[in-house]
Amino acid sequence: MRILSSELKNHIGKEVTLLGRLYAMREMGGITFCVVQDRKGLVQAVFDVPVVAKVGSIVSISGTVKEEKRAQLGVELAGKTIAVLQAPVEDLPFDLSKKELKVELPTLLDHRPITLRHETVRSIFKVYDTVLVAYAEAMRAMDFMEVKTPKILGAASEGGANFFALDYFGTQAFLAQSPQFYKQITAGVFERVFEVAPAFRAERHFTSRHVNEYISLDAEMAFIDDERDVMRTITQAVRHVCETVAEKNTGELALHTAEQVLLPKEIPAVPLAEMKRIIKEKYGHEVSKDTDIDPQGEVHAGQYAKEEFKSDFIFLTKYPREFRPFYIMPDPNNENETRSFDLLFRGVEIATGAQRIHDYHQLVDSMKLFRLNPDDFGFYLEAFKYAMPPHGGWGMGSERIVMKILGLASVKEAILFPRDVKRLVP
Amino acid sequence: MRILSSELKNHIGKEVTLLGRLYAMREMGGITFCVVQDRKGLVQAVFDVPVVAKVGSIVSISGTVKEEKRAQLGVELAGKTIAVLQAPVEDLPFDLSKKELKVELPTLLDHRPITLRHETVRSIFKVYDTVLVAYAEAMRAMDFMEVKTPKILGAASEGGANFFALDYFGTQAFLAQSPQFYKQITAGVFERVFEVAPAFRAERHFTSRHVNEYISLDAEMAFIDDERDVMRTITQAVRHVCETVAEKNTGELALHTAEQVLLPKEIPAVPLAEMKRIIKEKYGHEVSKDTDIDPQGEVHAGQYAKEEFKSDFIFLTKYPREFRPFYIMPDPNNENETRSFDLLFRGVEIATGAQRIHDYHQLVDSMKLFRLNPDDFGFYLEAFKYAMPPHGGWGMGSERIVMKILGLASVKEAILFPRDVKRLVP
Repeated sequence: MRILSSELKNHIGKEVTLLGRLYAMREMGGITFCVVQDRKGLVQAVFDVPVVAKVGSIVSISGTVKEEKRAQLGVELAGKTIAVLQAPVEDLPFDLSKKELKVELPTLLDHRPITLRHETVRSIFKVYDTVLVAYAEAMRAMDFMEVKTPKILGAASEGGANFFALDYFGTQAFLAQSPQFYKQITAGVFERVFEVAPAFRAERHFTSRHVNEYISLDAEMAFIDDERDVMRTITQAVRHVCETVAEKNTGELALHTAEQVLLPKEIPAVPLAEMKRIIKEKYGHEVSKDTDIDPQGEVHAGQYAKEEFKSDFIFLTKYPREFRPFYIMPDPNNENETRSFDLLFRGVEIATGAQRIHDYHQLVDSMKLFRLNPDDFGFYLEAFKYAMPPHGGWGMGSERIVMKILGLASVKEAILFPRDVKRLVP
Repeated sequence: MRILSSELKNHIGKEVTLLGRLYAMREMGGITFCVVQDRKGLVQAVFDVPVVAKVGSIVSISGTVKEEKRAQLGVELAGKTIAVLQAPVEDLPFDLSKKELKVELPTLLDHRPITLRHETVRSIFKVYDTVLVAYAEAMRAMDFMEVKTPKILGAASEGGANFFALDYFGTQAFLAQSPQFYKQITAGVFERVFEVAPAFRAERHFTSRHVNEYISLDAEMAFIDDERDVMRTITQAVRHVCETVAEKNTGELALHTAEQVLLPKEIPAVPLAEMKRIIKEKYGHEVSKDTDIDPQGEVHAGQYAKEEFKSDFIFLTKYPREFRPFYIMPDPNNENETRSFDLLFRGVEIATGAQRIHDYHQLVDSMKLFRLNPDDFGFYLEAFKYAMPPHGGWGMGSERIVMKILGLASVKEAILFPRDVKRLVP
């Protein structure tokens, strides 16, 4: 029977069989050190005879479990036999056995089928998995249920730009940029909904934080007073995600230069206009009044949050109406501002949220203000025509969370098979 | 403070405030009966004065909680005040207050923003949510982790037909029919992976069990002996799903004509050819030797499973190689058969699975046998070139599970906003 590397410590002194990949191998004075990788991690097997096996092979190793204080798992194997179940047809194109995989980003991504096998690269996706678990856990604990909404849309509705178009049985269709309309409609039915699903953006970005397909963590909730209810809820979700990673992924975090996440009881919130003023005064960086905050501005906002509030997170609030889509609730006290926010994590926007307009007439008026034709929004408006509760929600980028938790240089490192303007393969 | 309908039983004799939708209303002898719907269910509030409110309105109701044995929740409200927070602009196009929503399927789907509000329709998606939770729970309990793989592909690789094509920055791309190649590659890295994600099929079906976008419950596992390991694992997943629904969704199940699911300790498995023979002998239905089992044949297979094994599930096994893709493991004892299976639930195929070919040379040979060019499978073959463990897995349709658990007439009823050949909206 197979024993996993993580279970070895319960079998000290016994003979066991390990299955996995021969991760690294070196010989020294007639002794062969074989590092085996299984789904739980790495473990060393020591043979006092030469071993004939190619690194990268799938192997079955039997031997006796020995305590070894210096080893990560506290054990190693006194190897007895090694059988190669499957050998590489060619030698690996680069060395995967070093602690750090020193390859350029394009190589890392071009050869995903093998670079993913590197323990440090692999660890990123164990953390990613925890983020997925923890987000769903947090949402369900707050009585949200998951909805699955269509990714092929009949209309590029939310404004129109940056949609991928496809041929749908002779009709033009579009890939969903977000579940926006559907999560609002379903919040009118189920009150509290979330969705974990791909989102597609046909944007020509060439940055370390943009991709054209990503997994969006969405939520929408009804019967809110205003956007601050949404901000409190996303804070709880993010807190549970960060705490769960810290608890479950100690081994994976140790492989990265990951600092502990600073998340105070309440995430500081600063109106966008005020943040621009602060950034200019404190850091000498000017962001135009007429644009959203720029990437450098986000970095400074993150710096400010850390210096001033010992927080890795900060909300920017009160976005001007012209920076937000038509369905965002304007501030009743100031029609030029909205009840909306961005959430920044270590100087990068990870989420955007808001209260939405829920009154039918106000929504139609807002469409007209944005020079949109209400006739183009048939089924969306149907929900409002028959009464919607006050509601709001957010969209959050799952990969950016992992990128910032682990201190990765690019969001693409946090995606198994990323898609960017130039990358459709693998 | 708002009290949810499900919490009312803890507040008997107290005055509370309910928020929700005015679901139904009738007057009798000066008494007004208002049924309010919140995310937990329906509750009646009784007013001894006329109530001025449109059905469908979002309301806030205050009143005193009274025990009421005949009510579903065991309580009702002696209404004191009712405030309309948001009223429909028009009267509802059809009556949502009846126990059954008697509309044709196209109407049901055309008006999803409001038909979803019907308690019986809404209940389908509470069950669907449980299926999602339970599937992930089962998989994680068996040490699988979730992967998220790209839905935009550079090549329509798995054979080619029935892919939706899109324009990707001037290049032709395709929507993923399944995560097949990616889940195999990642099973070579993480050993046990699952994915819950949309799958897209450009098939011109007009049936009650096909849609063009659905949520696929995928899994792939390494270090298997053969396809029977995969069959045991999917059995555990399906068992946990059915048991969790039975436990968590008693209220929802009661709204449907749902019989208890019959799932014996082991799901019976019958080779495809033998099942064809049985179907002909027992039910007089002939399925050609040269085709896969047809829908009527599946119904009979389900009938046979129930009569013979008291099981709502049955595996069909040993599919001929010509019915399966190139990457499926042929039976070493009979090259014309494969180590594969279909899983039927109440006479409908819900999953397809198999052991895969893991040897590089065998895989290349199989491609050639299927008249495919290995050069078209670059990154997929890279994983095998550098050694893959024996592995297998399945793809399963989440919506069909819900359809068959609840006894729905069409799989489209189990999808919030379904996509079929004629339906892109809502």
